Amino acid sequence: MDIKELLEEVKSGSLTIDEARFSLKGFPYKDLGYAKIDLHRQVRTGAGEVIYGGGKSPEQINGIITAMAENGQNNILITHLSAEKADGITTTLPWHYYPEGELAVIGGMPRPNGHGTILVISAGTSDLKVTEEAALTAQFLGNKVLRLNDVGVAGLHRLLAHFSELQEAAVIIVVAGMDGALASVVTGLVAAPVIAVPTSIGYGASFGGLSALLAMLNSCAAGVATVNIDNGFGAAMMASRINHLEVKK
Amino acid sequence: MDIKELLEEVKSGSLTIDEARFSLKGFPYKDLGYAKIDLHRQVRTGAGEVIYGGGKSPEQINGIITAMAENGQNNILITHLSAEKADGITTTLPWHYYPEGELAVIGGMPRPNGHGTILVISAGTSDLKVTEEAALTAQFLGNKVLRLNDVGVAGLHRLLAHFSELQEAAVIIVVAGMDGALASVVTGLVAAPVIAVPTSIGYGASFGGLSALLAMLNSCAAGVATVNIDNGFGAAMMASRINHLEVKK
Amino acid sequence: MDIKELLEEVKSGSLTIDEARFSLKGFPYKDLGYAKIDLHRQVRTGAGEVIYGGGKSPEQINGIITAMAENGQNNILITHLSAEKADGITTTLPWHYYPEGELAVIGGMPRPNGHGTILVISAGTSDLKVTEEAALTAQFLGNKVLRLNDVGVAGLHRLLAHFSELQEAAVIIVVAGMDGALASVVTGLVAAPVIAVPTSIGYGASFGGLSALLAMLNSCAAGVATVNIDNGFGAAMMASRINHLEVKK
Amino acid sequence: MDIKELLEEVKSGSLTIDEARFSLKGFPYKDLGYAKIDLHRQVRTGAGEVIYGGGKSPEQINGIITAMAENGQNNILITHLSAEKADGITTTLPWHYYPEGELAVIGGMPRPNGHGTILVISAGTSDLKVTEEAALTAQFLGNKVLRLNDVGVAGLHRLLAHFSELQEAAVIIVVAGMDGALASVVTGLVAAPVIAVPTSIGYGASFGGLSALLAMLNSCAAGVATVNIDNGFGAAMMASRINHLEVKK
Amino acid sequence: MDIKELLEEVKSGSLTIDEARFSLKGFPYKDLGYAKIDLHRQVRTGAGEVIYGGGKSPEQINGIITAMAENGQNNILITHLSAEKADGITTTLPWHYYPEGELAVIGGMPRPNGHGTILVISAGTSDLKVTEEAALTAQFLGNKVLRLNDVGVAGLHRLLAHFSELQEAAVIIVVAGMDGALASVVTGLVAAPVIAVPTSIGYGASFGGLSALLAMLNSCAAGVATVNIDNGFGAAMMASRINHLEVKK
Amino acid sequence: MDIKELLEEVKSGSLTIDEARFSLKGFPYKDLGYAKIDLHRQVRTGAGEVIYGGGKSPEQINGIITAMAENGQNNILITHLSAEKADGITTTLPWHYYPEGELAVIGGMPRPNGHGTILVISAGTSDLKVTEEAALTAQFLGNKVLRLNDVGVAGLHRLLAHFSELQEAAVIIVVAGMDGALASVVTGLVAAPVIAVPTSIGYGASFGGLSALLAMLNSCAAGVATVNIDNGFGAAMMASRINHLEVKK
Amino acid sequence: MDIKELLEEVKSGSLTIDEARFSLKGFPYKDLGYAKIDLHRQVRTGAGEVIYGGGKSPEQINGIITAMAENGQNNILITHLSAEKADGITTTLPWHYYPEGELAVIGGMPRPNGHGTILVISAGTSDLKVTEEAALTAQFLGNKVLRLNDVGVAGLHRLLAHFSELQEAAVIIVVAGMDGALASVVTGLVAAPVIAVPTSIGYGASFGGLSALLAMLNSCAAGVATVNIDNGFGAAMMASRINHLEVKK
Amino acid sequence: MDIKELLEEVKSGSLTIDEARFSLKGFPYKDLGYAKIDLHRQVRTGAGEVIYGGGKSPEQINGIITAMAENGQNNILITHLSAEKADGITTTLPWHYYPEGELAVIGGMPRPNGHGTILVISAGTSDLKVTEEAALTAQFLGNKVLRLNDVGVAGLHRLLAHFSELQEAAVIIVVAGMDGALASVVTGLVAAPVIAVPTSIGYGASFGGLSALLAMLNSCAAGVATVNIDNGFGAAMMASRINHLEVKK
Repeated sequence: MDIKELLEEVKSGSLTIDEARFSLKGFPYKDLGYAKIDLHRQVRTGAGEVIYGGGKSPEQINGIITAMAENGQNNILITHLSAEKADGITTTLPWHYYPEGELAVIGGMPRPNGHGTILVISAGTSDLKVTEEAALTAQFLGNKVLRLNDVGVAGLHRLLAHFSELQEAAVIIVVAGMDGALASVVTGLVAAPVIAVPTSIGYGASFGGLSALLAMLNSCAAGVATVNIDNGFGAAMMASRINHLEVKK
Repeated sequence: MDIKELLEEVKSGSLTIDEARFSLKGFPYKDLGYAKIDLHRQVRTGAGEVIYGGGKSPEQINGIITAMAENGQNNILITHLSAEKADGITTTLPWHYYPEGELAVIGGMPRPNGHGTILVISAGTSDLKVTEEAALTAQFLGNKVLRLNDVGVAGLHRLLAHFSELQEAAVIIVVAGMDGALASVVTGLVAAPVIAVPTSIGYGASFGGLSALLAMLNSCAAGVATVNIDNGFGAAMMASRINHLEVKK
Repeated sequence: MDIKELLEEVKSGSLTIDEARFSLKGFPYKDLGYAKIDLHRQVRTGAGEVIYGGGKSPEQINGIITAMAENGQNNILITHLSAEKADGITTTLPWHYYPEGELAVIGGMPRPNGHGTILVISAGTSDLKVTEEAALTAQFLGNKVLRLNDVGVAGLHRLLAHFSELQEAAVIIVVAGMDGALASVVTGLVAAPVIAVPTSIGYGASFGGLSALLAMLNSCAAGVATVNIDNGFGAAMMASRINHLEVKK
Repeated sequence: MDIKELLEEVKSGSLTIDEARFSLKGFPYKDLGYAKIDLHRQVRTGAGEVIYGGGKSPEQINGIITAMAENGQNNILITHLSAEKADGITTTLPWHYYPEGELAVIGGMPRPNGHGTILVISAGTSDLKVTEEAALTAQFLGNKVLRLNDVGVAGLHRLLAHFSELQEAAVIIVVAGMDGALASVVTGLVAAPVIAVPTSIGYGASFGGLSALLAMLNSCAAGVATVNIDNGFGAAMMASRINHLEVKK
Repeated sequence: MDIKELLEEVKSGSLTIDEARFSLKGFPYKDLGYAKIDLHRQVRTGAGEVIYGGGKSPEQINGIITAMAENGQNNILITHLSAEKADGITTTLPWHYYPEGELAVIGGMPRPNGHGTILVISAGTSDLKVTEEAALTAQFLGNKVLRLNDVGVAGLHRLLAHFSELQEAAVIIVVAGMDGALASVVTGLVAAPVIAVPTSIGYGASFGGLSALLAMLNSCAAGVATVNIDNGFGAAMMASRINHLEVKK
Repeated sequence: MDIKELLEEVKSGSLTIDEARFSLKGFPYKDLGYAKIDLHRQVRTGAGEVIYGGGKSPEQINGIITAMAENGQNNILITHLSAEKADGITTTLPWHYYPEGELAVIGGMPRPNGHGTILVISAGTSDLKVTEEAALTAQFLGNKVLRLNDVGVAGLHRLLAHFSELQEAAVIIVVAGMDGALASVVTGLVAAPVIAVPTSIGYGASFGGLSALLAMLNSCAAGVATVNIDNGFGAAMMASRINHLEVKK
Repeated sequence: MDIKELLEEVKSGSLTIDEARFSLKGFPYKDLGYAKIDLHRQVRTGAGEVIYGGGKSPEQINGIITAMAENGQNNILITHLSAEKADGITTTLPWHYYPEGELAVIGGMPRPNGHGTILVISAGTSDLKVTEEAALTAQFLGNKVLRLNDVGVAGLHRLLAHFSELQEAAVIIVVAGMDGALASVVTGLVAAPVIAVPTSIGYGASFGGLSALLAMLNSCAAGVATVNIDNGFGAAMMASRINHLEVKK
Repeated sequence: MDIKELLEEVKSGSLTIDEARFSLKGFPYKDLGYAKIDLHRQVRTGAGEVIYGGGKSPEQINGIITAMAENGQNNILITHLSAEKADGITTTLPWHYYPEGELAVIGGMPRPNGHGTILVISAGTSDLKVTEEAALTAQFLGNKVLRLNDVGVAGLHRLLAHFSELQEAAVIIVVAGMDGALASVVTGLVAAPVIAVPTSIGYGASFGGLSALLAMLNSCAAGVATVNIDNGFGAAMMASRINHLEVKK
């Protein structure tokens, strides 16, 4: 139905305004108040409320939390939140800070409601921050998460020893820096969709994660897609959308 | 179960050799014959047989087709197959060439057996080759595919007019060159996972697709992952894995 | 007015459907027919109809011309049209091919209706193709155009000899490859807005126009903005928007 | 008139020396005194006096202010002025520091004298610094400015809710980092000239703003030109030149 | 022998489980305990135990040392260990810190057991840190090491004066930043394999070592291979593998 | 003397118009006739007339030659002139084509009138085209030229055998691709100024000459400056300016 | 011994001229005749004579062959020799052309005289040209060579099935494009030195082999060094130097 | 004369050892003592002694100064010496620190002994550090130096007002960041050789000086060569070599 038809149906009364609004899910009302908070995104995209903490002061973050809470939203994820900045959070809502993933969750983790398990695999212990950002975000989004750390391809047996976990995962997130080779190897071993997260771990010609990014984009195995360098959050968002795939009866 | 335990169980007889082999699905036998064809990949990763036609002569392609057919595989996709090269295909199996996607399918398209529809969206008509590679590959992999072409963000209403198709898709593939902006806009409008395919369409500072690639990797909307420039095939592989997500009862 | 209010006004009858559509200028009807031609863009953005000829076959171009003509549009610009491809144009509408700018105009050039003159300056004769694409596009969009070629900064007196033309232009387009220095020099000499077009003229470390692009983006003179490498068309579109600035009484 | 003719007319007396100087507006006298301050730029290019504060000590800035004041210039913009550095400004002229745009204005903001309104649009709150640099500079240059913040394309409805402001602006500045998609979307919705400012907001493959820069240069919508990364000042200079377009009667 | 045959031989008893494990050297047991330490790598690749200290806290490093010691490994190299971090090492094992190479050795240097001498050559004194990382790592791996510092090609005679040392080395590591020219010159003078290590020494267009890296990869002399920028450790690992080449009788 | 003073002196008659023009050497008269040929450049910069043949048709080149000849200029260098294009040159002036440097000279080579010899050194025979462009251009500009080919640093003795030629040259041009190491080595051996010309010879990570360019810019020897990749002409222009240095008595 | 001492010993007679020349192995006599052929390189570096055929005409190649033959050298490798160019070789010496490696060998392959076997591993059949260039060059240099093709990590079992060949090789050359992951995986499985050759196989973000190059330089496994993209020849030169390591008794 | 002949002449006595050493100027004796100081470089290349202070501790610098002084060298330039580091210099020789160029001179500036004046031109006051490094180094090397600061092309008249100084310089060094346009403009105005120094001044797409570097390498004016970003020292070395050109009687 195009917009003209919609307008005509509204005029004729065959469509209520609310119904029109629903089919116009992507065009909600004018934003009001502090910071143009997107009050309808959860409805529209299925994602929970998220505050990107990077480049925001604790005061700004507190302000947004308050505004959200006033709109009844009290289950909030705050990413890119350094330990220092977390000290400035003053909300009276129950919340927990996860230093390893540099994020905080207000209102607790939900029960998993996805189709299966999201497996988060990392190549090395230095990738921990990104790995945890991915794993904790996925939990926040209602997914069961399993971690498999430090299984880089330099010691292939460490990965192969977990062959069955690889097979059983619904979705796999692979976190790796440097040569990014783990993404290709894992994708070749499974039938599940793989999301690759290059990390900025490395030095010299890793060029801040470029080496891993390019390697992952050029994976010789198909069935993998890539997110931005160090973007554990984005990988989890993608994985959660997959794990909540609308399945027709 | 680790390998030593497996070996002991085999020795003791509590595990048959075939059972051991099954749990060793990732380590099949030594390849035999022409070109190390991976005869077990379909079992292992769920993907059909694919021949990458780029950089192979018609003779080499014919040889691989024959070897596959002798192993009982006669449902084959050949990608990156120019019209000229397609003229050199001599198989007696039934096959069809799709010039718009520069690929051929031997043995016909299967019935869709995925969870929902894969929607392939393109920004412009110049992206057609990549779009069709994605759409036809997805069909070959057992997916119902819907196309939505020429809906670049320069004329936003063209995209918004298809709001309902966007909402109904299980998985979305967005194909766009130049500014790659379509990926961000679409991801912000839907709850389904989005796979972005940058294309090399453009000139000057598009640097062969780099502009679109970087824009997609930096999408301000989360829930999207990216494949290599012009990699319609890879996007379809990822989309099909998602659309065939193993759903626990 | 937000969408809900608009819907309510439509329902109440205080707004006719046409009025609603007008204020919804950005959301026209569902596209119909061949190739999703944007039939409303001229209304919406003030730009004439343009066909990007690059990567399209003469047959495709002819088809789009016909579809446009059937909708009453017979003033069309076709860019990136090689002489060879132009030979395949079969329209019965009056048209002219401009080989130096590799473009064709159907229906003739309009009378200038902008505020002043657009001056197109080029650094060297090798930039001619881009220069003419800019100049002819600007004419097609209803602007008076003056050209000033081959005035690169290696012979500064050639530019300074035209100091008065520089002062009198309403908008200036500077086309230059290699060091792109002309853009900075011109911007420092005038009060008019300057649009810089880097060209791919050069070799070695010009890296296909990157040197000129970066130099222009880093102009030490302010009052200049840059378009893509070789994008004479885009520069003219920008210049024409400026030259048709809506001026409040 | 070329220089020889000018010289002959001066010699013959048919041109006074002052008249000659006027037509030689681009070649003023030898600079004298401290720091080669360009005392004639305002006359020549229409722009007010600006001090680039980056890389200058408070002492140097104070010295330049004094020199300017002695030449009767007491309406001065100082950009790239950190709050810390602003503490060192000692001028006795009236001045105001704008921390959000990291700039100071000596002598107050002028009354707007341009043709219309410059609309400054930002994709996210993290772009604030660049947005304010653009908006405040435009005000300093005599323009009426309207701001529209936090309307990134991930929540398209936030932008569309302001469709009428978009239509009414004379010139639009779009400030966006990451995917830079907002520039393309806005340009496609309006007929006014658009100036795109990529920002260095982002991480990983944003490569310090390169992703947004390339996306903007490759905008699929025409009618937009781009300035350097984070260059809010340059965008305002360009916008102000446009908004003060010399309009022939 | 493939895996099925191996399994059958285990079952039949013609192969003991230990023998099977040996031929499966690449697939050791599941890792247990703290940090998935690779307890079998020394057996598998011939390299000693190494802890990459970069990005690890002293606590983490102490924990890994303890775990290794409990497994009987008390000859350990810790690289990328700043002097400050070294202060936090608490092991009771005998250890020594080498500040010039920013590494520590637990358990002392072994006696050289390679075929010949590894010569480590540096272009300038600024390359010292990388040079010493290479030299000390090579010693740790059981090699006799000779150093030749500050012999850059700008003073060619300094290098040529050591012509005989060059001739006598079994393997040569060349450490150089900036133009990386030393690698080409040395490779042209000797018959031994040369490993080139670009360093990030330099500024401007050295782009963090890129200039030296590219020069070394494009060496006009053949018989040289390159490792990552500043990767003295990797060069020593390669050199030691070469110097311990398994030589058939 | 500034412009105002000059004007006053002209008016007062203390300066003739011709004298004023002479001191205004950089501001000659308005260009006339075909193609804005710079008729005064030879006077102004000391360089002979040069036509850049790249991207020009034989017809255009012939036209420029004719226009120059009509102004009395019949000693002309035409660079980037392929053998095929040279066939289209129709001038009746005496001319010679040099296929190895892909350039033509009209009117013959002048007698050398510089201070000393320009030595052109190349690393390999593949650099011949650039080498000859440099050598022949230098001859055209009035320099004595000596060539020393194929002395790359992979065989250092080939270079060192010519140590005395190196010492005796007034100016040295070093042409090298790949690692560009020859520039550093030569600069370290001599006291004369060295001009480095990177070439696009190479493949892979030479990235079209980037490796040599960066290496030369980062030369560990000082006393060298670099021109664009493959720019033998520019190197000769620089060398000739040096070799014609105005020497005060 | 430095040069002065050497000179004094020559003068005093305690050193014969021939002895002096020997210790001056790196400084042979002035080259004579056609093309500065390096007649002493074989002595100096242990490598056979090689002609780089790229960018040379068949006539030039024939000339060099003749000159070498006259100096008694009739065992020559010609690389980068297209089949077409090979047709122009006219030598009367016995020679063979290898189309798969695009090289020719004059005088036959020598008997292997190295310490062990060089194993050349390739990721895919598209890497064949580079693989064969490496393998055949290694043979020409006196090495026993084993090939293992098409064992990319997307099907890991294909590689693992050859675990014993990996263990037995003295030196390993890994040829791979795209993600270059094979180099890391192989290096982690063996104790032998590994030489990685990135190839330009791939498209889009492989950027002509850059993705594989960076991945290999950033290998998470140590004991590997990298040569230029597509440089099979250079890898073989390095491998042969290793395999002919001078072993002290 | 080649080495063999030289050796024979030494043996026969027709050449004294000292004469042989002189003609072997490039091969001085083995370095002795602390830090392989090049005691003969002044003789060989005509350059004074220089210590690169970057990356060296005050202690190391003091050590080198002492070693040089013991060899009779007490006229020394120390570059890249921060004010803080200069505080640690303890030499008893007379010395002076120049904070604006971040360098120190031991033993005073020599009298100028070059052919003419070196003119150092800078585009802006932010380039001061590099400008002074160039100017002071040139003075140290025995050149008369003239400075012309803050004459960027955005205010062209500032440069043109100094037209006569431009004409009178023997060598010109142009220091500019951002668009680097000043180098092209200056080169087009003079006949003297021009050395361009790009600076890292700028932000965003200046990419640390890359924009200026590329612009300078691609200068549309010939007669200019470029040194590394911020390399004022290297520019002065080149300029001094030019200004001390050996002029044949």
